[in-house]
Amino acid sequence: MDKPQNFQSLIMNLQHFWADQGCLIWQPYYSQVGAGTMNPATFLRVLGPEPWKVAYVEPSVRPDDGRYGENPYRFQQHYQFQVILKPDPGNPQELYLNSLKAIGIDPHKHDIRFVEDNWDSPALGAWGLGWEVWLDGQEITQFTYFQQAGGFVLDPVSVEITYGLERIAMPLQGNYHFRDLKWNDEFTDGDVNYQAESEHSKYYFEIADVNRLRQMYDLFEKEANLALSNGLVLPAHDYILKCSHTFNILDTRGAIGVTERQALFSRMRDLAHRNAEVYLNQRQSLEYPWLNKNKTVRAQPEPQPSSPKTTSGSDLSTVDQSLLIEIGTEELPAADLNTALEQLTKSAPALLDELHLKHSEIKILGTPRRLVIFADKVASCQEDSVQIIKGPSVSRGLDESGKPTPAAEGFARGKGIPVEKLTKKTLEGGEYLVAELHLKGQPTLEILSTELPKLIAGLHFDKPMRWNSSNVAFSRPIRWLLALLGEQVIPFEYAGLISGNSTRGLRFHNPESLIVKKAQDYFAFLDGQGIQLDPLKRKNSISEQVIQLNKSELAEETLDAGLLDEVTNLVEAPTALIGSFDKTHLNLPDEVLVSVMKKHQRYFPMRKPDGSLLPRFITIRNGDRQFIESVTYGNEQVIQARFADANFFISQDIQQKLGDFLPRLKTLTFHLKLGSMLDKTNRISAIVEKLSDLLKLSDSEKVTALRAAELCKADLVTHMVTEMTPLQGIMGRYYALKSGESKAVGQAIEEYYYPRFSGDKSPSTKAGLVVGIADRLDSLAGLFAVGSAPTGTKDPFGLRRSAIGLVQNLINAEIDFNLSQGLEFAAQALSKTVSFTPEQQKVSLTFIISRLENVLLDQSYIYDVVAAILAEQGNNPSQAFQAIKQLTDWVKRPDWNTILPAYARCVRITRDQKTRFSVEPDGFVDPSEKELAAAVKTAQAIQRKVGSVDDLFNAFMPMIPVINRFFEGVMVMAEDQTLRQNRLGLLQQVAEMAKGVADFSKLEGF
Amino acid sequence: MDKPQNFQSLIMNLQHFWADQGCLIWQPYYSQVGAGTMNPATFLRVLGPEPWKVAYVEPSVRPDDGRYGENPYRFQQHYQFQVILKPDPGNPQELYLNSLKAIGIDPHKHDIRFVEDNWDSPALGAWGLGWEVWLDGQEITQFTYFQQAGGFVLDPVSVEITYGLERIAMPLQGNYHFRDLKWNDEFTDGDVNYQAESEHSKYYFEIADVNRLRQMYDLFEKEANLALSNGLVLPAHDYILKCSHTFNILDTRGAIGVTERQALFSRMRDLAHRNAEVYLNQRQSLEYPWLNKNKTVRAQPEPQPSSPKTTSGSDLSTVDQSLLIEIGTEELPAADLNTALEQLTKSAPALLDELHLKHSEIKILGTPRRLVIFADKVASCQEDSVQIIKGPSVSRGLDESGKPTPAAEGFARGKGIPVEKLTKKTLEGGEYLVAELHLKGQPTLEILSTELPKLIAGLHFDKPMRWNSSNVAFSRPIRWLLALLGEQVIPFEYAGLISGNSTRGLRFHNPESLIVKKAQDYFAFLDGQGIQLDPLKRKNSISEQVIQLNKSELAEETLDAGLLDEVTNLVEAPTALIGSFDKTHLNLPDEVLVSVMKKHQRYFPMRKPDGSLLPRFITIRNGDRQFIESVTYGNEQVIQARFADANFFISQDIQQKLGDFLPRLKTLTFHLKLGSMLDKTNRISAIVEKLSDLLKLSDSEKVTALRAAELCKADLVTHMVTEMTPLQGIMGRYYALKSGESKAVGQAIEEYYYPRFSGDKSPSTKAGLVVGIADRLDSLAGLFAVGSAPTGTKDPFGLRRSAIGLVQNLINAEIDFNLSQGLEFAAQALSKTVSFTPEQQKVSLTFIISRLENVLLDQSYIYDVVAAILAEQGNNPSQAFQAIKQLTDWVKRPDWNTILPAYARCVRITRDQKTRFSVEPDGFVDPSEKELAAAVKTAQAIQRKVGSVDDLFNAFMPMIPVINRFFEGVMVMAEDQTLRQNRLGLLQQVAEMAKGVADFSKLEGF
Repeated sequence: MDKPQNFQSLIMNLQHFWADQGCLIWQPYYSQVGAGTMNPATFLRVLGPEPWKVAYVEPSVRPDDGRYGENPYRFQQHYQFQVILKPDPGNPQELYLNSLKAIGIDPHKHDIRFVEDNWDSPALGAWGLGWEVWLDGQEITQFTYFQQAGGFVLDPVSVEITYGLERIAMPLQGNYHFRDLKWNDEFTDGDVNYQAESEHSKYYFEIADVNRLRQMYDLFEKEANLALSNGLVLPAHDYILKCSHTFNILDTRGAIGVTERQALFSRMRDLAHRNAEVYLNQRQSLEYPWLNKNKTVRAQPEPQPSSPKTTSGSDLSTVDQSLLIEIGTEELPAADLNTALEQLTKSAPALLDELHLKHSEIKILGTPRRLVIFADKVASCQEDSVQIIKGPSVSRGLDESGKPTPAAEGFARGKGIPVEKLTKKTLEGGEYLVAELHLKGQPTLEILSTELPKLIAGLHFDKPMRWNSSNVAFSRPIRWLLALLGEQVIPFEYAGLISGNSTRGLRFHNPESLIVKKAQDYFAFLDGQGIQLDPLKRKNSISEQVIQLNKSELAEETLDAGLLDEVTNLVEAPTALIGSFDKTHLNLPDEVLVSVMKKHQRYFPMRKPDGSLLPRFITIRNGDRQFIESVTYGNEQVIQARFADANFFISQDIQQKLGDFLPRLKTLTFHLKLGSMLDKTNRISAIVEKLSDLLKLSDSEKVTALRAAELCKADLVTHMVTEMTPLQGIMGRYYALKSGESKAVGQAIEEYYYPRFSGDKSPSTKAGLVVGIADRLDSLAGLFAVGSAPTGTKDPFGLRRSAIGLVQNLINAEIDFNLSQGLEFAAQALSKTVSFTPEQQKVSLTFIISRLENVLLDQSYIYDVVAAILAEQGNNPSQAFQAIKQLTDWVKRPDWNTILPAYARCVRITRDQKTRFSVEPDGFVDPSEKELAAAVKTAQAIQRKVGSVDDLFNAFMPMIPVINRFFEGVMVMAEDQTLRQNRLGLLQQVAEMAKGVADFSKLEGF
Repeated sequence: MDKPQNFQSLIMNLQHFWADQGCLIWQPYYSQVGAGTMNPATFLRVLGPEPWKVAYVEPSVRPDDGRYGENPYRFQQHYQFQVILKPDPGNPQELYLNSLKAIGIDPHKHDIRFVEDNWDSPALGAWGLGWEVWLDGQEITQFTYFQQAGGFVLDPVSVEITYGLERIAMPLQGNYHFRDLKWNDEFTDGDVNYQAESEHSKYYFEIADVNRLRQMYDLFEKEANLALSNGLVLPAHDYILKCSHTFNILDTRGAIGVTERQALFSRMRDLAHRNAEVYLNQRQSLEYPWLNKNKTVRAQPEPQPSSPKTTSGSDLSTVDQSLLIEIGTEELPAADLNTALEQLTKSAPALLDELHLKHSEIKILGTPRRLVIFADKVASCQEDSVQIIKGPSVSRGLDESGKPTPAAEGFARGKGIPVEKLTKKTLEGGEYLVAELHLKGQPTLEILSTELPKLIAGLHFDKPMRWNSSNVAFSRPIRWLLALLGEQVIPFEYAGLISGNSTRGLRFHNPESLIVKKAQDYFAFLDGQGIQLDPLKRKNSISEQVIQLNKSELAEETLDAGLLDEVTNLVEAPTALIGSFDKTHLNLPDEVLVSVMKKHQRYFPMRKPDGSLLPRFITIRNGDRQFIESVTYGNEQVIQARFADANFFISQDIQQKLGDFLPRLKTLTFHLKLGSMLDKTNRISAIVEKLSDLLKLSDSEKVTALRAAELCKADLVTHMVTEMTPLQGIMGRYYALKSGESKAVGQAIEEYYYPRFSGDKSPSTKAGLVVGIADRLDSLAGLFAVGSAPTGTKDPFGLRRSAIGLVQNLINAEIDFNLSQGLEFAAQALSKTVSFTPEQQKVSLTFIISRLENVLLDQSYIYDVVAAILAEQGNNPSQAFQAIKQLTDWVKRPDWNTILPAYARCVRITRDQKTRFSVEPDGFVDPSEKELAAAVKTAQAIQRKVGSVDDLFNAFMPMIPVINRFFEGVMVMAEDQTLRQNRLGLLQQVAEMAKGVADFSKLEGF
């Protein structure tokens, strides 16, 4: 296909291609949908057992992607081409790649990649695993194996292929702005769609009336429920879609807060679920009419090479042979590749050992498309072995005359040997009759036939998926299995596949596959295609190439280790290349540039030795240097567009000061019962005011903290943060500085989010710390007050994270702070909105302390030490932390077993007493008790730091011998009541010394 | 194309076909639309001067077409394929017909027809003229020349072609139910759409919450206004579409009354108009960027045969030749064909006469596709002629000496003749100088070249249209012009065409066209194709065929004249055929069957001699008997589906009694301020109660009237009437009888609508009459009360019709009835709802009387007679009518000119007196006045029928001589005041005799 296709021809060609594959060609839906998935031809038809193949265009409306028609790649409406293949035809990736050829994409000229991207739609209760398909760094297709829809597990799984048509058409035509994209020979996409982009963007971002849209949402939802209650699936579905679109507009207007979002999602999900259920019931009651149609659908089994003749194992049984196992997969996610390799590194040798198969070193290798087990030499046969099986004890197995009892006879019969062959053996300290079974080693071929499926099945992944009727779960579909012992195929079946001796090469390289005669051929074949099978070598190769390219540009030579690891797992045949972008984009904040390059594109940013960014990036192509210019060019266009996008947002945002965004926070709901984000901001300010005094901030710190509190949420309604939420705080600081705020205020606005993730830093300034505490206290108090506390595994508002951040920061800042006091502040700030009752305060405090406990346990503090301290000091995390460190040391002391018991005696004997007895010094009669009374008085007089374990024990230590003598000298529970109560009172005073420090009864050995 | 195409291939083939014609292939819209027209790719793009060609599928949602998936052809969602060609390419019909071939329709095997169907969308302020295209009686396409959109006149005009895809695909596949239609090789339309049909139908008809939908409508409308006020055309358009769809659902739920419908349409139209205006301004301010693209579009001029060499007229100038003019058009509407023929019958001979062209008889012939003027002999040259031009009068033109004055010289110079050549002539009673111009006859060829365009331009049509840049207006586009004088082309240009000698045959017949050498060839050619050019012969042919077929089935031989006239104008080559339908459909009411056959299908129903219907129909195919079986079969499927539709409705309806529909009238709004149709029904009942007494109905008539009043609107919410409004009343009676009501009640329910149109009958029973009066009084009173009276040409609620019906019925029933009294009854019934003030009552009364005046003038009563009576008796139409008849007779009397003046004298002399003087009998002095006083007394004593003109004049006649003597005998305006006032008082009494009868001062000659 020489002439670049115009847009409409491309669509028609895709229609023809998929029609030829047996797909029904369907039409776009008559409702604004965010994706073709929402068309009932996907959303409903993927449910249930009936087969279904469909393809259609879907003009997809995503209000928040609106760019007023100015961004080359992003629009409020883009054109999707949606394909559903149900069930998995076995080769959907290949079908897809053929469709690209059918529309004129020469895969050799591009870098086509399957990059992990899992999809879920919280509104539809749907999710799946799969990839983005990249064409030279540009996402052109979403490829997903649907696992669930409407909250129902899908069986069979559907393959969903969603083409982003503009993004495919543009590089094909050599255009890199949608406005230049030729729709037909006369008109461009810009001609026919620019005005719509511009106007709808304005409508969605600036004009849409929030109040009216909320009313619409409400009406749509009610109407959906009405339809549903009448069993009308499709009308209900229509209204769910309208809810969804209305939600999207509200969201784009910045009118939806985090908590409201959760609530609305949950309502939509519930509707979608109930609707799916009704649909499933409908189909069931119709007895699944399309199941019959299935018969006419040609099955498309993955072609398997005919298994070569395997000569019987016996004649080779003593010869060592190479073992080569290749699990051929669709592109594994980077993390899954790692975990698979790790698991195999343990499990493969363990298996051979366990099977008594002698072997040379076992190498575990792999790329995104294959997991490989290789051993140069493996015995062709198991070693013979002896197995000893324990029978009855000698006393039970032999009678007094030494003859086998019926028990022994039964045991021998069970093992298939004569009773005489049983021997005596001393096992586990007793003497038993045992059977010694001599096992003849089995041929390796035979035994591996049985064991290899188990080995593969033993691989576990965090997010496994199913794809075909075998219902096997794996990271991504397994598409071929190569298993060779020497030149023999090890025959087995797994995941619907039969093992063979065929492998596949690098995508788009010739030959596409190879029948492997022996292991060397295999390695030579992959090598010849540039595939680096060894992850370490691959990583080194990338690292060297990147460093080399950095050198060539006089750039800093360090490179991000995490990114390197990831990229290593994204390619089979890495080739690095340099791309550049317009240096005007360097005006953007570094964090934005880096975030876009690393997170979105997996590019290595390039920096000058002074640390400043260069307008360059390095990316790793999967393949060789052929046509690398066109790959480079494509990647450059992509990053340009992404930066243009960021630039668009920021330039929009800085047209006003950060403070000017505050009124818009009113439209951003935090929680229906807790008001808007502006309400929250006001509460944060009120709490900060009190905390500043309590925590003794300097005047200037307080001023900073109060200003930061006021502005801390303002960036949430900026375009940049709306677009890239992880930049919240970062953009806040950036915009604050642009707006003339002090550096300190900017810093506090960024830092109050710290720690943003496990292991992140804490705020470095008091102002940031205090705003962060206030924010978290408000969330915890507010959400507990309105009954939105976490339950079970559900924590939709991230309160665990809030509590952890709160205690972590207090610990790191070493600040004494009474959580109860803080919650009381929060209660006061909330008082106009909701009542946060003392009972709720107690529950939320317990919740926070239990997070604190987890934090400490994660830091490897011993559980009983932690429990002992938190029982008394949980209220004050920093102080508790100090105490725990001290107690940890005390517990390790060699004399601890004299200290604790002395104290414990005093406690144990008094703890059941309901009365606190007063001590009458003159009532003591025995010298030992008089001595103890004096010692107690002395100890009590010692000045101790609040909560200090050291101070406690330093005061207590001198008392230990006195206590011991006391118990030797007197009987506490004397008959004489006066005497007894006086002694108990004295011991009560000893026991009470630990009050506010620890509850030592929680310690082991108390 | 041998294999019947599946649905998706058909769509793809249409896409390819139109893409090849340079159309941009667009996508369905993301909003529920009733038609592809509402997609902005049509609705907006047809505005303004820029060229645009587009084609797309549009799944079109029309809630009230929902049939629960049970009707073969009707669904709440059908698939349209929409094409817009802007400007007119010159041959859109041919392109369209080619597209049918491209999807496998062999036109020879079918009857393909262009049947007048004009399109308008009150909601969009859009309309156009064109056709339904019929395939064997089935409407498969709407073909329209857009004249206006959004209230703007379109220039250029767009051609809109809207395919009904299912209806095309079904006969192609040989399937006649959508559920059997193959979508692809595996699935049928029923597989993928039946459930949707069933569920959405249920939702639209039974479930949708009216109250919520009204709220949605309101929100959408507000949001549209908001977008519009921000200049956002497309967002506004989206909300207009949502309004429209919501309106449609409400309508389907039966929740929209006539008056509310008007109000909502007007609001939507206003929005659409303002939006179109903003769009036009946008394009203008962009300087119409697509105008440039036009240059690359290949113009597609209608191929014109090269004009044959025309030999100079001179050598043939004296020979008579035949004249043949053919105006070739796209299919003319039946009525337009008639009017065109009528006009030409007058104008063509008149033109030749006026041009002094001698000619034999001129025949005017025509079919839907051609208007023909033919004369066997026309002189090749005009006759020579003399023209006499009036100059100055002799007295002004000649001085006393008889020499020409400068005035005469100037006149002669102006006419180009020497002054001596002026002659004297007596003209218009005076003597003038005249110029006699001797004109040499011009060659006919030359003169017709100039005059023929004017002849064509002189044709006028009720609804003319424009189609190309010539902006010529005609009934339908003119596509070729044949103009032959003998063998010579009469060259001229009109409507963008150049005249020639080429004609075209019957569609799909070979040869398609002919170069006509001489007139005989032309007639032979058409004859050879079966075209009957003479309308009368064509009509007779049809009539004979129909009668013949009736005979063959032993059916009644009469046939509907109106239908015959219409059908004659629908075909060029008529061939009658008989089709049949399932006789179970004969259970449907006759009116329904006949209405469907005649109105929808233009079929002749067949009746047994006893008048009952046969399950047969006759239809007239355009063409010969080839493949007539397939044409018959197709037509039979269509009528089956239509009857199934009616059957569906009626069987739904009769599941409950007519009275059971009453509560649903509550949801049918009559007018926002006047409540529901149920409210109206209640008011009608209240008025009927009073009218029954006033008009002295018998007890049983009153009972009937009251029951009929209660039920009279109930059928409006039945399915059948919702579907076919003209059946209102008819179905009401049918359902009433089915529900066990008396025959009289049923009859009244039907009759109260009488007269339904101009010339229709009046009710035959008192009950029907009274209910009809009450209904109309309520409408008039209510709508005047709320300010919805007709203004200018606007009469959205048909109040003129109501008033006319009201007075017509009163006249026909000869019932004395005081309209003021009636309006007062209506005011009382309305009193709980709105106040109908005395002032408004007066205005509405005037309105009704002025309708009455029109009715009478239409019956040719003389305007002054009518005015004289109505001035006094307009209030009582029947009585006024009698009086007018009488006065008309009086006015015709030979002695009228003695009667009127005698009376007039009395009036004239008294009418300016402000005071009414009492008469003092003793005050008269002259015998003549004493005599008159006595005569007045005598006349006053005569018993006269109220309002009777006869009685008045019978009383007055004897007074005439007395009056004359009086005026001779006395001077009325005597100096003596007492005397004067006494005489004036006496004359006032004479004048007052006409009070309540007529205001004779309105008469001419008064």
